[in-house]
Amino acid sequence: MLAALAARQRKFEVVLVHQGSHEEKIRDVLDAASAAGVPVKKVASRELDAMAHGATHGGVLAVCSAKPLTTGAQLLELLERVDHPPMLLLLEGIEDARNLGFTIRSAEGLGASAVLIKKHVWDFDAVEIARPASGAFERMPLVKFEDVDLLQKLQQRGLRIIGCIAGVRKTIYDMDMAGGIVLAIGGEKRGLSGAVRGICDDFATIPTNLGAASLPLSHAAAIVMGEARRQRG
Amino acid sequence: MLAALAARQRKFEVVLVHQGSHEEKIRDVLDAASAAGVPVKKVASRELDAMAHGATHGGVLAVCSAKPLTTGAQLLELLERVDHPPMLLLLEGIEDARNLGFTIRSAEGLGASAVLIKKHVWDFDAVEIARPASGAFERMPLVKFEDVDLLQKLQQRGLRIIGCIAGVRKTIYDMDMAGGIVLAIGGEKRGLSGAVRGICDDFATIPTNLGAASLPLSHAAAIVMGEARRQRG
Repeated sequence: MLAALAARQRKFEVVLVHQGSHEEKIRDVLDAASAAGVPVKKVASRELDAMAHGATHGGVLAVCSAKPLTTGAQLLELLERVDHPPMLLLLEGIEDARNLGFTIRSAEGLGASAVLIKKHVWDFDAVEIARPASGAFERMPLVKFEDVDLLQKLQQRGLRIIGCIAGVRKTIYDMDMAGGIVLAIGGEKRGLSGAVRGICDDFATIPTNLGAASLPLSHAAAIVMGEARRQRG
Repeated sequence: MLAALAARQRKFEVVLVHQGSHEEKIRDVLDAASAAGVPVKKVASRELDAMAHGATHGGVLAVCSAKPLTTGAQLLELLERVDHPPMLLLLEGIEDARNLGFTIRSAEGLGASAVLIKKHVWDFDAVEIARPASGAFERMPLVKFEDVDLLQKLQQRGLRIIGCIAGVRKTIYDMDMAGGIVLAIGGEKRGLSGAVRGICDDFATIPTNLGAASLPLSHAAAIVMGEARRQRG
């Protein structure tokens, strides 16, 4: 909740705290709510329990909107305000919420400005994504990616789209990733879709040992973003 | 099962196939069993179902030992046969079987010779580790790490133990990882234990952005191993 209050992406109606809570124990929540201009209301545990719909609440609960998606137009706007060549992560074929959460967390740590995700992923339970993302879920702009139009617009803004696929000659270490980039990572089973491949400006591979299974998608994303961050210094 | 038969780490008693199976459909299993000298027996589906204890079996089932641990002594022996400076991965504080499986898979892809894992991890369900590891679980030597004696022995063989921790000045990119190394990665909550820190030859950090949450443990492992592999060429 602290990350959500600080990130200011969700719309908060009210923060409910158990009327028996010691102020010191919930001081950080009270401070964050106050900083975000969100009212705090003391309520009985029965009311908290009812609001939590059976989930645990630890004596504190917020009434707020879902984490909002970032639209393509908002992404383009956001990039205007980024003061360094942006790095975006595009994920295709991610198969579970937890891996998405971990990857969003790494994307933040390694300096991505947003994560673009295919449509079907939005069926994931947000709580399952948020937990492993450890706050990054609240802060990271998440863009629902439906077709390549948005990628073309990003190219028009000077970003290069780099497809990470197996079996190409150029490695991520030979690839110049210091400028504005979209790093496109495909699923473990099918790789990048034809539509995304078709629009990529270049392709690179993560060198791995012969005979080994392919890298897990989220690990591949972490390694590529790590290398991009290294090149950016 | 194919990976397990090929890896020759488990002891196979027999491979049971449904008596109605078309030989073409199970050709790869029959070939792998034959190559490994494991007898194949045709049985009725009732017998297969009973052996599978309620799990699905797809008409093929092996009676075999659990994946064996690699002892410290076996690890030292194994390193004698590695024809390049070995890279080992030591994981502390990994909290779930799936992440361990993914990490074992990346370790194989990025050239690690073995993965050393703390005792409590051995309570994980092997099936839960094996699935995301995609065959690498069968092939990768897994060493139960109980105290630092083994690390001292590895040091005596010329391996350097590199602790990956937050907040040190030296980055993994400044660290020479081309020689024999043990990459020690700590859990997200507590980091590396004092005992392991105490024996490390050097420390390095993965550069991440200020204000971001720490990297997920398995992603940190992937990034460090990726960099070590890059240096090894």
